[in-house]
Amino acid sequence: MNQQERAARTQSALIRSAAELFERHGYEKASLNDISSGAGVSRGALHFHFDTKADVAGAVEDAAARALRDAVDSLPPGGGALQDLTDLSHRLVELLLWDVVVRAGFLLSCDAGQRARVDLCRDWETYVHEFVARAAEEKCLAPGVQPEGVVNAVVAATVGLVVLSRTDKEWLAGRRHTGLWKLLLDTVADPRTADRLNPGGTGAPYDSTCGLPDSACAGGLQPC
Amino acid sequence: MNQQERAARTQSALIRSAAELFERHGYEKASLNDISSGAGVSRGALHFHFDTKADVAGAVEDAAARALRDAVDSLPPGGGALQDLTDLSHRLVELLLWDVVVRAGFLLSCDAGQRARVDLCRDWETYVHEFVARAAEEKCLAPGVQPEGVVNAVVAATVGLVVLSRTDKEWLAGRRHTGLWKLLLDTVADPRTADRLNPGGTGAPYDSTCGLPDSACAGGLQPC
Repeated sequence: MNQQERAARTQSALIRSAAELFERHGYEKASLNDISSGAGVSRGALHFHFDTKADVAGAVEDAAARALRDAVDSLPPGGGALQDLTDLSHRLVELLLWDVVVRAGFLLSCDAGQRARVDLCRDWETYVHEFVARAAEEKCLAPGVQPEGVVNAVVAATVGLVVLSRTDKEWLAGRRHTGLWKLLLDTVADPRTADRLNPGGTGAPYDSTCGLPDSACAGGLQPC
Repeated sequence: MNQQERAARTQSALIRSAAELFERHGYEKASLNDISSGAGVSRGALHFHFDTKADVAGAVEDAAARALRDAVDSLPPGGGALQDLTDLSHRLVELLLWDVVVRAGFLLSCDAGQRARVDLCRDWETYVHEFVARAAEEKCLAPGVQPEGVVNAVVAATVGLVVLSRTDKEWLAGRRHTGLWKLLLDTVADPRTADRLNPGGTGAPYDSTCGLPDSACAGGLQPC
């Protein structure tokens, strides 16, 4: 491992250690000493990468924003906008469950006490806006449904999940999240195409959430 | 004003001062000195009422929980459960707009860094659960809609609004909130009774959110 690789690995360990401390104790109570010792490096090594605690927090938020961007970029091409948005929301919930950096990034973004240099909630709103605008272009929204209302509902419910899951991880349970998308898609998707959408995400078992027999759900349907 | 009234007034001023500081700077950064001077009283007067900052925070949360309870209790009797829940949600948004103690109470409750003695999000969930269970008993939910899913959607979206409105008060705009309830009621309310519901809250102008001419909306309809 060369010097550059070692530096990148140390930086990544510092970001992870900071995320764990921010999540457990909050930004204010986390100290630079705890962050460096959590990463198994000296305070000097920390200062090679970051000047202040705000810089470390900024790096946590940047890393979380990249993870969200990667989730958007890794959606398979050719999907319909509403299914893509459903899939992306499930991917976000997985990230929140398994990636402390994404959780801490969102929590820092939600914390008005300190002004984040990245606003993950705003990033998320921008992505949701793009997908819903595409769904409107694809004529996949139900008649009379306003795109702006759909964006607001998706963003408010998702941010609510992030905050509620801090004290009760059950809010990120797949079943619960699928239930939310079932309710939403039943209202906002054009009835002619709604049956083709899987509120559990592409590839998830259709079972009762689909409302169609498995044979009708599997393959051959146009995306929406 | 007797001594008891003066004490109650001082306590109320301290709670309000603390709520303003918690909202502006976060719990950790607010000091007991700032809280007492914000209320225009001495540090000694503060200690007559509260031992620690955690005690003051607890009093803020208690006051916010009472305001929420009062909003529930002041709903006019005889309303249907779904309209009652819509009205209550609008009342909560008004409280969040105008009452710093309710805002700070919710923010403390959302802040995992400190463990609240009152959990306002949990209180809200309990109320929503009661109203949705009553809507199911009244047979006002659409066929196939699971009460649990409705509770999750309402709670997640409302908590999301609270958090998002910290940085952008537009999230509490009546129009936006009415749009959320229109989407939700269109999905969860039994179609036979949905037209009688006003997503803007009882007494709000029906206009386009009603979908019925004003004459049909005004009076004479059974609640749901």
